Amino acid sequence: MHVNAYAAPAAGQPLAPTTIERRPVGANDVLIEIEYAGICHSDIHTVSGEWGPQPFPVVPGHEIVGLVTEVGAEVTGHRVGDRVGVGCMVNSCGECANCRAGDEQYCVQGMVPTYAGTDRDGSTTQGGYSTHVVVDAGYLLRVPAGIDPAAAAPLLCAGITTYSPLRRWGAGPGKRVAVVGLGGLGHMAVKLAHAMGAGVTVLSQSLKKQEDGLRLGADAYFATSNPEAFTELAGRFDLVLNTVSAAIDVDAYLSLLAVDGALVNVGAPAEPLSLDVMSLISGRRTYAGSMIGGIAETQEMLDFCAEHGIGAEVEIIPAAKVNEAYERVLASDVRYRFVIDASTLR
Amino acid sequence: MHVNAYAAPAAGQPLAPTTIERRPVGANDVLIEIEYAGICHSDIHTVSGEWGPQPFPVVPGHEIVGLVTEVGAEVTGHRVGDRVGVGCMVNSCGECANCRAGDEQYCVQGMVPTYAGTDRDGSTTQGGYSTHVVVDAGYLLRVPAGIDPAAAAPLLCAGITTYSPLRRWGAGPGKRVAVVGLGGLGHMAVKLAHAMGAGVTVLSQSLKKQEDGLRLGADAYFATSNPEAFTELAGRFDLVLNTVSAAIDVDAYLSLLAVDGALVNVGAPAEPLSLDVMSLISGRRTYAGSMIGGIAETQEMLDFCAEHGIGAEVEIIPAAKVNEAYERVLASDVRYRFVIDASTLR
Repeated sequence: MHVNAYAAPAAGQPLAPTTIERRPVGANDVLIEIEYAGICHSDIHTVSGEWGPQPFPVVPGHEIVGLVTEVGAEVTGHRVGDRVGVGCMVNSCGECANCRAGDEQYCVQGMVPTYAGTDRDGSTTQGGYSTHVVVDAGYLLRVPAGIDPAAAAPLLCAGITTYSPLRRWGAGPGKRVAVVGLGGLGHMAVKLAHAMGAGVTVLSQSLKKQEDGLRLGADAYFATSNPEAFTELAGRFDLVLNTVSAAIDVDAYLSLLAVDGALVNVGAPAEPLSLDVMSLISGRRTYAGSMIGGIAETQEMLDFCAEHGIGAEVEIIPAAKVNEAYERVLASDVRYRFVIDASTLR
Repeated sequence: MHVNAYAAPAAGQPLAPTTIERRPVGANDVLIEIEYAGICHSDIHTVSGEWGPQPFPVVPGHEIVGLVTEVGAEVTGHRVGDRVGVGCMVNSCGECANCRAGDEQYCVQGMVPTYAGTDRDGSTTQGGYSTHVVVDAGYLLRVPAGIDPAAAAPLLCAGITTYSPLRRWGAGPGKRVAVVGLGGLGHMAVKLAHAMGAGVTVLSQSLKKQEDGLRLGADAYFATSNPEAFTELAGRFDLVLNTVSAAIDVDAYLSLLAVDGALVNVGAPAEPLSLDVMSLISGRRTYAGSMIGGIAETQEMLDFCAEHGIGAEVEIIPAAKVNEAYERVLASDVRYRFVIDASTLR
């Protein structure tokens, strides 16, 4: 089946309309008519070539929401007409200890990313900037009725990427959580941590988005460009969730943690960071990383969002504006996630 | 009261016999006649001046075992004749959240180290290379009858420094623990992790101490000078306890961890380390630090050691050989801890 899509023809080239082939619906597959596809910063890193060679042309997009239009013979959990989501991965070995533990994102053989990846049948995966996608039903999420479908799309990456470490490091009543950066990931982290009952502080470069931050659920907001913030907040937090991929002063952020506190990165800067081990030892602190979440946990996150009325703050654009949107993401000019209306591709 | 001791008169100078003043036994104090004092690498760092200016003359020693010879009017938990221990700290504020939680080592006002520290009364603390010491009873440990007193001395620092992170990061049946370095700390880590029921692998620069390592309780032993060890052991461990204070290739050691595994440092190199955050993110791994343990936990460790027949492997020396012992520690020529026989100071 040939479908319309937007693809980057080569590294650093603007995206352009094209058509791509989607595989026939296999026994365990589901065909989805895409409604919305979020624009994640990873999409831009990938097509720019920053993350190394890619199998161009690349159709990005791993924040996908749509309607089921066909199901394979052996699919039982999804029916035509269901609203479903696809996140950052579309396959994994299913057999290793990590897959069996529900941590498919850490599959020992490597999970198959939703785009620019090599699927288990050897084909190259293509993402959600498209009208349709065929996905193994085991990697499909149910989008609960309570969430607006456009606002649900970014949950499939930005949502789970922040939900998973918040849960794992115990965000909840009585816990003091700081969120570094108020972008696509950060604004989700604020909403989710607040809904979990934690006290939430935003640490942003400036106070430009302070009003937004407080509206989204933060209890406090500090500008990290002011060094006094680090003095004032020393030893304050149980968890500092760093959503910024740029290099940070790790020791400065570790100093904000109470004993047994954790600094958790969900993005990685391109360059290695410098760390004074004494920053860890002096408070039994940990520096950790986290990558999206497993399929079951992603479903849990969507259900949590529906229950708490949480969606991403989105700006919906037609597919033709994707290159312009990329420019604006790079200029931090988005509050807080662009979502492509996939009907504009038909 | 004037007592004999060995002190470093100035940074980098050999230790020499001297006399020091011990305070009168206060209402909450205990006077101890010291039997044994272990030699910790920290002692050498401190008197060499590597760790900055010190209040010379400095009497080192924070692995102290001895007998109670006098108790203050309000001391209830210890009696004359009891065998007791003193570790790395002799005071703390007792009121901050960390002290109240039993984490006196992370006292917000700073715990008072056993030597070269400023006690809460303003006096300078002097350590265990001495015939007697006066200590607040709240920072005293009971040395159970089952442990040889000389072998017990190093437990007060090397023992608790490794016991605490092993417990916190879940060493026990079914857990795969690697111990980096087989020195004073490492050999205790091997004994303790083995007694806790964990599978234990030693990662040492060479295979020189392999026989010892296996005898102490290790199940496997690898030389880190062989790069293939890192390939073979990739993703193998739940906990890698790094007892080496020299700079390490953090990313290489993180690669040895399974998903959710932790690399924990108990020593800190002088220089900052370089870390690729992707090493953390790609397996939800953590890099953490840990510093000794609280008083109650130190007692728990001593009781655990008595129950399991664990003591340090020691070489007992007269005080007059302390400078020679320092040279041998620096040359890694000790299996595995020097302990000063304090009766040679009388």
